[in-house]
Amino acid sequence: MTSLDDLPIRDDLRGKSPYGAPQEVVPVALNVNENTHPIPEAVAHDIVARIAAAVIGLNRYPDREFTELRDALAAYLGHGLVREQLWAANGSNEVLQHLLQAFGGPGRTALGFAPTYSMYSLLASGTGTAWIAAPRDEEFELSPDTAVRAIREHDPDLVLLCAPNNPTGTPLSLETIRAVADAAHGIVIVDEAYHEFADPGTPSALELLPDHPRLVVSRTMSKAFAFAGARVGYLAADPAVVDALRLVRLPYHLSALTQAAALGALAHSDLMLGMVDEIRGQRERISAELSRLGFHPYRSGSNFVLFGGVDDPHAVFEALLARGILIREIGLPNTLRVTAGTEIETTAFLEAIAAFAPNRHG
Amino acid sequence: MTSLDDLPIRDDLRGKSPYGAPQEVVPVALNVNENTHPIPEAVAHDIVARIAAAVIGLNRYPDREFTELRDALAAYLGHGLVREQLWAANGSNEVLQHLLQAFGGPGRTALGFAPTYSMYSLLASGTGTAWIAAPRDEEFELSPDTAVRAIREHDPDLVLLCAPNNPTGTPLSLETIRAVADAAHGIVIVDEAYHEFADPGTPSALELLPDHPRLVVSRTMSKAFAFAGARVGYLAADPAVVDALRLVRLPYHLSALTQAAALGALAHSDLMLGMVDEIRGQRERISAELSRLGFHPYRSGSNFVLFGGVDDPHAVFEALLARGILIREIGLPNTLRVTAGTEIETTAFLEAIAAFAPNRHG
Repeated sequence: MTSLDDLPIRDDLRGKSPYGAPQEVVPVALNVNENTHPIPEAVAHDIVARIAAAVIGLNRYPDREFTELRDALAAYLGHGLVREQLWAANGSNEVLQHLLQAFGGPGRTALGFAPTYSMYSLLASGTGTAWIAAPRDEEFELSPDTAVRAIREHDPDLVLLCAPNNPTGTPLSLETIRAVADAAHGIVIVDEAYHEFADPGTPSALELLPDHPRLVVSRTMSKAFAFAGARVGYLAADPAVVDALRLVRLPYHLSALTQAAALGALAHSDLMLGMVDEIRGQRERISAELSRLGFHPYRSGSNFVLFGGVDDPHAVFEALLARGILIREIGLPNTLRVTAGTEIETTAFLEAIAAFAPNRHG
Repeated sequence: MTSLDDLPIRDDLRGKSPYGAPQEVVPVALNVNENTHPIPEAVAHDIVARIAAAVIGLNRYPDREFTELRDALAAYLGHGLVREQLWAANGSNEVLQHLLQAFGGPGRTALGFAPTYSMYSLLASGTGTAWIAAPRDEEFELSPDTAVRAIREHDPDLVLLCAPNNPTGTPLSLETIRAVADAAHGIVIVDEAYHEFADPGTPSALELLPDHPRLVVSRTMSKAFAFAGARVGYLAADPAVVDALRLVRLPYHLSALTQAAALGALAHSDLMLGMVDEIRGQRERISAELSRLGFHPYRSGSNFVLFGGVDDPHAVFEALLARGILIREIGLPNTLRVTAGTEIETTAFLEAIAAFAPNRHG
């Protein structure tokens, strides 16, 4: 039998394992920061109707420029954005891959502030871009000074800012983003995958686009839009950045089905985002209750909470899984991460975790 | 205003233009080798029903391993294939990109026989793999001797064989494929995107898989399956090759919609492939009629015909476009390429091209 080691794979892939959280079927899945609320029925009907219309023409290639979708994304984001500033792909990972393909590559560097989204370093590696992990401040925060110091020291070709940060949930201030955009010579990507869950009034890095032609703001429909299964990520940037991405994307990379589904969801963005307030409420409830139990929840602007104070994260992970509750070990000592689900799911998690609370004997 | 030249794009992308045939709306589009027959209505209904079921769960990430789809693809291909040997992605371009990411890269080489599918060299370039264009025999044929000579001379890390070849349509014998697979030290990819249009009884390179663990056979649903808009490409290979691709694919790269749509189409593969005989008949009609008109059609095992003997290809392209008929200039001197469409579309093309026939005064 042939094994992977017998094959001439790229040297830097030898001995590696594929990325990915376990996909287990459990009653309460709070491990990958999905929106656990299903799509509203009225929206689902409209999406299916649009897809049905697209199926008729599936023998033809899709609109390579996904023009209607870019218009709809621009309208959703506001900020005076127009079609020429929008780009989309099969999930925000592919959007980021396009950016690294266009602006990274061998001999170039990408910098992020660790711990941060683990796909960044994998995407860098996959495109031959050297990855630089710069440090954060206490409590996983990132001040303008700390960020700018790293930019000055390393002068990276790309900077990846995760706002709020995954897997820590930490909000990132517009001051830090502006300071990085002003200090960096290369492309600055602000990954706002979880932006819709931020506290009301939190500004988006979209505000900075008019004055920063090398700034890119990426988003996803996977989280707030409850659309993880449809694989739609997108970005807003200067039209010249979008032109660069056309040089590296595979032709017809967005299927006609994806385009139709995303248009259906965007046509009902108010309904689709209707669960966001509820999810934010559950996140606040998780943070408050974990504090009361003696854990150490970190500040979160997302739909999940990272918490410290866990003696044996793997044992707690397994104990909760045995009760049908799947959360996430992310490899930071004494921490676990949990997604804010529905009220019932959150209750199940909080009841289960109480058995491991530092304060349980207090 | 910022231009592309103002941005720090990768040096090898400077001055390049995006790939892509013009997407013009015309009555008779015979330029990108689509299947011009729409999906049968009964199949469309089943596909929509399956997608409707998937929409309910779109808030969750899709099955990262697309297990059911790999089972269905294995069953469709036959040859005793099993799930572990199948892989799929958003179009066969992405399948090929995964292969180049896993087995190519800086310092490695990929070899093809020019002229061949223009995406090969672009995919090589996008992954930092050096591209080697080896020559063909007369009439764009490729004999075992010619192919093996190039393999021995260059000892490439990957070989890309297009069978039948695009854009020439030339069939590739199993003898040549076997000779290459025996001679090559690296990965040998046989791109059978148009295999279903080959003359009945034409063997597939799938026959060679049991004895060649570094052989890969890629296919697409875009052509014979009339599914270009859905973006589904796939491959069959040794399970170890598939394991290697898991290291480079983006997590959840195949959406739940894509998986549902492909399963619907595969469940009705007989109906979906019902137009193949008709298309093959139109291809034969095109070749015979172009010969009669004094053009030089090359041998085709696909759903398109490349023909020489055109004095001024661009003028003919424009003249046909003015009549609402879109065909393809592929950059080979004195040639044009046309897709075999429906009987009516083929008639429109043949009537229009007659005005430019070498024999029109004879």
